[in-house]
Amino acid sequence: MIVLNFKTYSEATGEKAINLAKIAERVSREQDINVMVAVQHTDVYRVAGSVDLAVLAQHVDAREPGSWTGHVTAEAIKASGAVGSLVNHSERRLTLADIGAVVATLKKHNLLSVLCSDTPETSAAGAALSPDMLAVEPPELIGTGIPVSKAKPEVVTKTVEVVRRVNEEVIILCGAGISSPDDVAKAVELGTKGVLLASAYVKAKDPYALLSEMAQAAKRASKR
Amino acid sequence: MIVLNFKTYSEATGEKAINLAKIAERVSREQDINVMVAVQHTDVYRVAGSVDLAVLAQHVDAREPGSWTGHVTAEAIKASGAVGSLVNHSERRLTLADIGAVVATLKKHNLLSVLCSDTPETSAAGAALSPDMLAVEPPELIGTGIPVSKAKPEVVTKTVEVVRRVNEEVIILCGAGISSPDDVAKAVELGTKGVLLASAYVKAKDPYALLSEMAQAAKRASKR
Amino acid sequence: MIVLNFKTYSEATGEKAINLAKIAERVSREQDINVMVAVQHTDVYRVAGSVDLAVLAQHVDAREPGSWTGHVTAEAIKASGAVGSLVNHSERRLTLADIGAVVATLKKHNLLSVLCSDTPETSAAGAALSPDMLAVEPPELIGTGIPVSKAKPEVVTKTVEVVRRVNEEVIILCGAGISSPDDVAKAVELGTKGVLLASAYVKAKDPYALLSEMAQAAKRASKR
Amino acid sequence: MIVLNFKTYSEATGEKAINLAKIAERVSREQDINVMVAVQHTDVYRVAGSVDLAVLAQHVDAREPGSWTGHVTAEAIKASGAVGSLVNHSERRLTLADIGAVVATLKKHNLLSVLCSDTPETSAAGAALSPDMLAVEPPELIGTGIPVSKAKPEVVTKTVEVVRRVNEEVIILCGAGISSPDDVAKAVELGTKGVLLASAYVKAKDPYALLSEMAQAAKRASKR
Repeated sequence: MIVLNFKTYSEATGEKAINLAKIAERVSREQDINVMVAVQHTDVYRVAGSVDLAVLAQHVDAREPGSWTGHVTAEAIKASGAVGSLVNHSERRLTLADIGAVVATLKKHNLLSVLCSDTPETSAAGAALSPDMLAVEPPELIGTGIPVSKAKPEVVTKTVEVVRRVNEEVIILCGAGISSPDDVAKAVELGTKGVLLASAYVKAKDPYALLSEMAQAAKRASKR
Repeated sequence: MIVLNFKTYSEATGEKAINLAKIAERVSREQDINVMVAVQHTDVYRVAGSVDLAVLAQHVDAREPGSWTGHVTAEAIKASGAVGSLVNHSERRLTLADIGAVVATLKKHNLLSVLCSDTPETSAAGAALSPDMLAVEPPELIGTGIPVSKAKPEVVTKTVEVVRRVNEEVIILCGAGISSPDDVAKAVELGTKGVLLASAYVKAKDPYALLSEMAQAAKRASKR
Repeated sequence: MIVLNFKTYSEATGEKAINLAKIAERVSREQDINVMVAVQHTDVYRVAGSVDLAVLAQHVDAREPGSWTGHVTAEAIKASGAVGSLVNHSERRLTLADIGAVVATLKKHNLLSVLCSDTPETSAAGAALSPDMLAVEPPELIGTGIPVSKAKPEVVTKTVEVVRRVNEEVIILCGAGISSPDDVAKAVELGTKGVLLASAYVKAKDPYALLSEMAQAAKRASKR
Repeated sequence: MIVLNFKTYSEATGEKAINLAKIAERVSREQDINVMVAVQHTDVYRVAGSVDLAVLAQHVDAREPGSWTGHVTAEAIKASGAVGSLVNHSERRLTLADIGAVVATLKKHNLLSVLCSDTPETSAAGAALSPDMLAVEPPELIGTGIPVSKAKPEVVTKTVEVVRRVNEEVIILCGAGISSPDDVAKAVELGTKGVLLASAYVKAKDPYALLSEMAQAAKRASKR
């Protein structure tokens, strides 16, 4: 499984978000691999209407619909076609209480939650909240191109170990610095089910080629 | 001028946001009055594509495009068809530094800024940042149906006075508790150019009738 | 064990904080029960220097010493005589990442962490971070005088159950609405080791009598 | 006037804060210049009790005394001997609404407010709130040792100009990167009444010598 975070990059905003999502859709179909795209709130409707791919929001507020200005509810992203949301990304941290509330609200609306965390300990804590997916991303590696799966493989293996004690079912992903097919393979070998990546795809010269190779690497690694 | 804030009300999300915006568009045309709608981020694209009306976002983050997950940039709302944004609504307060940055960024993108404030003092402070519009809303009255123009007329007149010392041009609006045509007339009589309202419109049994009467009341008051 | 949170009540600031701490010290000695007081940052030094009682801070920031203005470090509270801190109180929520960092930093400085949480799920999450103590407090009951141990006993028993699956050692306390000796007894009967309370003690007409009776009730309940 | 911000540096915590404050007291007396020290909350009581110098807090929350855990009230800092507080330091930004509330609350308690801002525009905005002092500090220069008075003198002169249009009385200080007596002189020459500095003093090999020379430079410059 590959989750592509479009962040607020200019290269992944508006029409460009649709283009990048269409490329991801093509790779997903050709390689028969699960690819999700996490797009900006303003782009959820357009992207979800343009591709046959799981579209995630990048953030949801811990608010029910009502008298809240400038917030994003689970109901709103669902009405726009999203099937879930990232939660607690390192660039959009939430309080523990709000994470608990958001994961529960997403579940209530049959939306997927992809909870991000920074250490094995907070990953285990997050796992206790029963999200659908959990992505461990040491913040110091995000955007560096230095993959956690290589720079700190022990963070990944420790995370898998302590999360499994708390939660048998959550799907574990590996994020931060993932930039090559080899990084993806390494992440799978360390016991995760896939990766969360952003700039490497969004800013790739040939995103189609990169994602295709990543998909192939992931499949090879998961067969071993 | 009437600015309608859709907040995150269920009654103003997705398809329902489009319907409410179409009603506002009709009143704007029939009454020849300037109406703007501030919609949820997920609805900006759909609403802006459905009506010939100024569509605002409810909030923009003080971030340039880049490695920011779950944030909303000026560039993104513009790419989706918004012509501006509310800034610092009482339900989405910003730091002073971020207000300064957001107002400047909106201006750079030729987007309107509607800055909200809570007292005459913070209104004067806000006016020093040169937003296009300024809406004073005592937070204790928001959503109460008790109009600031009646409960605290001195807040409005004092605001107009101190703001004018700092800034001759900013358009001053009156918010908080505006729920009847009479409240709108009173706001105009106190020296403002119009109102910012939310629940009264969104939850009205007949939003068309209410907004039409508000528009007429505003026009009558401004002629006096 | 009884943890008294002085919050920012006028009745528990400066000299008055010292007086309330001295009463707590006397009850602790007379009843041979463990009492801790969580005082305002500005009062840590004075209170810690005036009583032979475990003094906690009410909050510590997730910051190492350095170029941070207006923050409170673990080092600073230790230098003033505190032996630990509340973490993530419902009136001072932290991000999950910061809770992880603060609990680890307190441990590094041999300081106690009393982690607050709002539901069984977030309590289990908190327990995964290995704080010394965990206090479950449904926010809707804080300050109401309606004890969680009576209004929502299932929250307490469920919390004890799910926390124990994750962490065998953490001391579990019960907070929110604790105002009578009977509430304390009930909390102990539900499986906790004690209570976290604030206004009932700080605003008591006779705090000595109240705390003495609470201590006796706790001891009786724990013998059963 | 020289305001020394001790931040959360280890070199300015606990006993070390007292030492640095005593040195400042000596220079203040010898040079007959107004020196203030902004210390950590945990150190306000000890420092205020040890020196005959104006002691400021580094931050106050926009909260009245009451049911707020882990916050710092104006009442609390006053009860510990502070005579005022920094407000909205770049490392502890507040919302515009909270700045308005904090400045008003400090005034109500006869406490000084030293409001920090980052640009000429936000300085003018801050001035509209009538704090006692205003310190402009471009955040990108804080802690760099590159003085705003040299790197961006136009920021300082522009600030003085726009602030004066809004507020005739507020005392204007210059912060960010001030590290030498020459920087202090330059700040005074640009039209400010003094400086706000931190690391240069806290980490000086000989803080007595540095501060003495800064005081002399300030006096010479103000006579010109």
